[in-house]
Amino acid sequence: MTETNTVRIAILGLGTVGGGVYQLFQAQKDSLEAKTGLKAEIAAILVRDRTKAREGVDSALLTDNFDDILHDDTIDIVVEVMGGIEPARTYITESLTAGKNVVTANKDLMAVHGGELLDLAQEVGRDLLFEASVAGGIPIIRPMKQCLAGNRITEVMGIVNGTTNYILTQMDEAGMDFADALAMATELGYAEADPTADIEGYDAGRKLAILASIAFHSRVTFSDVYTEGISHVTAADIRYVRDMGSVIKLVATARETEKGIEASVQPMLLPAHHPLASVKDVFNAIFVHGDAVGDTMFYGRGAGRFPTASACMGDIIDVMRNIRFYCTGRIGCGCYRHVPIRPMEETEQRYFLRMQVLDRPGVLASIASVLGKYGVSIKRVAQKPTADDQAELVLITDQVKEKDFFKAVDKFKSMANMIREISSLIRVYE
Amino acid sequence: MTETNTVRIAILGLGTVGGGVYQLFQAQKDSLEAKTGLKAEIAAILVRDRTKAREGVDSALLTDNFDDILHDDTIDIVVEVMGGIEPARTYITESLTAGKNVVTANKDLMAVHGGELLDLAQEVGRDLLFEASVAGGIPIIRPMKQCLAGNRITEVMGIVNGTTNYILTQMDEAGMDFADALAMATELGYAEADPTADIEGYDAGRKLAILASIAFHSRVTFSDVYTEGISHVTAADIRYVRDMGSVIKLVATARETEKGIEASVQPMLLPAHHPLASVKDVFNAIFVHGDAVGDTMFYGRGAGRFPTASACMGDIIDVMRNIRFYCTGRIGCGCYRHVPIRPMEETEQRYFLRMQVLDRPGVLASIASVLGKYGVSIKRVAQKPTADDQAELVLITDQVKEKDFFKAVDKFKSMANMIREISSLIRVYE
Repeated sequence: MTETNTVRIAILGLGTVGGGVYQLFQAQKDSLEAKTGLKAEIAAILVRDRTKAREGVDSALLTDNFDDILHDDTIDIVVEVMGGIEPARTYITESLTAGKNVVTANKDLMAVHGGELLDLAQEVGRDLLFEASVAGGIPIIRPMKQCLAGNRITEVMGIVNGTTNYILTQMDEAGMDFADALAMATELGYAEADPTADIEGYDAGRKLAILASIAFHSRVTFSDVYTEGISHVTAADIRYVRDMGSVIKLVATARETEKGIEASVQPMLLPAHHPLASVKDVFNAIFVHGDAVGDTMFYGRGAGRFPTASACMGDIIDVMRNIRFYCTGRIGCGCYRHVPIRPMEETEQRYFLRMQVLDRPGVLASIASVLGKYGVSIKRVAQKPTADDQAELVLITDQVKEKDFFKAVDKFKSMANMIREISSLIRVYE
Repeated sequence: MTETNTVRIAILGLGTVGGGVYQLFQAQKDSLEAKTGLKAEIAAILVRDRTKAREGVDSALLTDNFDDILHDDTIDIVVEVMGGIEPARTYITESLTAGKNVVTANKDLMAVHGGELLDLAQEVGRDLLFEASVAGGIPIIRPMKQCLAGNRITEVMGIVNGTTNYILTQMDEAGMDFADALAMATELGYAEADPTADIEGYDAGRKLAILASIAFHSRVTFSDVYTEGISHVTAADIRYVRDMGSVIKLVATARETEKGIEASVQPMLLPAHHPLASVKDVFNAIFVHGDAVGDTMFYGRGAGRFPTASACMGDIIDVMRNIRFYCTGRIGCGCYRHVPIRPMEETEQRYFLRMQVLDRPGVLASIASVLGKYGVSIKRVAQKPTADDQAELVLITDQVKEKDFFKAVDKFKSMANMIREISSLIRVYE
């Protein structure tokens, strides 16, 4: 702080989000004293190239040397909006160690190293706030850590990746193929040049790791989350599923069961009446079930310059309040339990299975007999002829242990005389 | 606090919510130290009749004398769940003055005297938290005060009364009349013996006053909110409206315009695709629009023993964290502006108007001419014969100043030779 009680803030990164934070800060600057009791100013912005012209930004604030920020004792808050693991991890570690508070939007980092960074923050009595790391502007971390703190949360699930939700919405509503819908998402700027992290569920998996850690008070990291992408989902699947009163969404879901925490990101069949089923396009929503509150849901824009900047500004304002009351570090990690992670193969699931089979007597009986052998009971079945001697068979199973079900699937793969192709295999939310 | 650093809590009232808080506290008690760094215990419960047997509650905790609590310096937090204005207002005032923190679920009180009580809390440096006063267990106050603090919020609207939403859902889905749906709600315990506060919109109006004060940083009290109930909505209106792709909901809405704050609770036509349109039965949802975050929505159970207790427990846990860090009073009132209230007659609205008219040439022309005279333009019109010489006329207008529209309606009332009845008049959300 300066001698006139002005909180000084450094921003690491001036990309989409960093630029948004800078702009939003300028717009909100005059109200900060009324909101927090303290004034604030941007003291420095770390950029890679300080000679590059940046419209609307005072070039005197720019630095390409993190040490200028680290060693400036008047800087109270470091806002990390660079993304990626390094150098963000080092910068945050050094900032906390130097007694600075940190606000970050970095899901990649928090999903993997959140535990160690939060422990460090607690040790030094500083804030490390990360509301922007999950679902952009949607308030979810503070509601779970504070408002719902009197609950035992048993489940958190959400649509937390806008890119894939846009793609699946297009496939559903316009009947597009995956490839066309992805191309459209790329054209509109919803998908990155390399869309892997989105379409393979990694981005959602990182957000889920953060959410699950908070929900269950037990550290869940990205590697604990089973992830499966949406590239194998076809327009045909979506049509079938719609006829059965369901939709396909990329669902991030974490549950605490008696046998441990189950956490996965995968395309799933959701009943059309489920509140998440009507979340469309790039919108995100997170569903939280607590033992006292019941079902709650939080909905909004999960990404984008200003929604993400909104979350960062909320965190900055909270740190300012804590600075004023000398209570930084007031809410720390919260992971005071150690609940084991339940491996995917041990979980129980329901499955939607679409296969191309030979259309002749005994085939369905053979398939049913294999399923029966591995304890898979069938909830729904539909068969329709597709070519002269072939038919499409669609099954929905009851709950069954994942590894048992895949034994049956392995068996099917060896039955080439009856089963031409396993076209789709998608889990069903229950 | 006791010498062993145990936070001591008194509960005022042991009704539905008070009993829920007590039970939830017992269930969560062992996790509180891990969550807050402090232990806690219930020290006293204020009841009217301490001789009444209460299952599961230690009778030694009961008192019928508030002074026992007020003068006990070891009591740190008073949880007011009695409801009503007095004696709750006096008890909260005295508790704060005595240096105790207060958690309240009392919307009646906060909607009218919230300003003075929050000012007092700020003056004495204590917490006065009231998450439970709006929409039960749905986290909304903290998200608005903290997570969205970096936004200029321009609109907050919601379905914040479960009783009326249940009634309207029944009228829509089962085609019931208002009276039958109300009787059903009463039978199921969703409506109180005297349902006035719910069906006339007063309950929702109180919640809206609290929400609007937070959203716009300017005090809005219950008397500033225009309220209109749902008893005049008919099953016929709902059918008409559905055919036009809309639903009727009791909408609480507050906007900050250049000319001041508009705040109303009234049945409104909402487009079927609006996120609030699919909020059914006793569920609540609140929609918040911020300049940076865009649209966000918060959904869940707006009432009931444990959802409300969940909100109280979240507040208790937050006060405990503040006690531990000596920062009670950290977030105070937030109303640092004085924005005028715009009277309803000055606002611009759209209207759905259903009338019984004589079915003969010139009638529609006369009606249209009256509307034109008062600057009301028609967006949609439908007429159908109902009896030999009568027809039903349904109009939807464009935006027009409320007082101009009602001049036209007054004129219609004098046209008994053409207009037999004005059957319905419902505003349209835009």
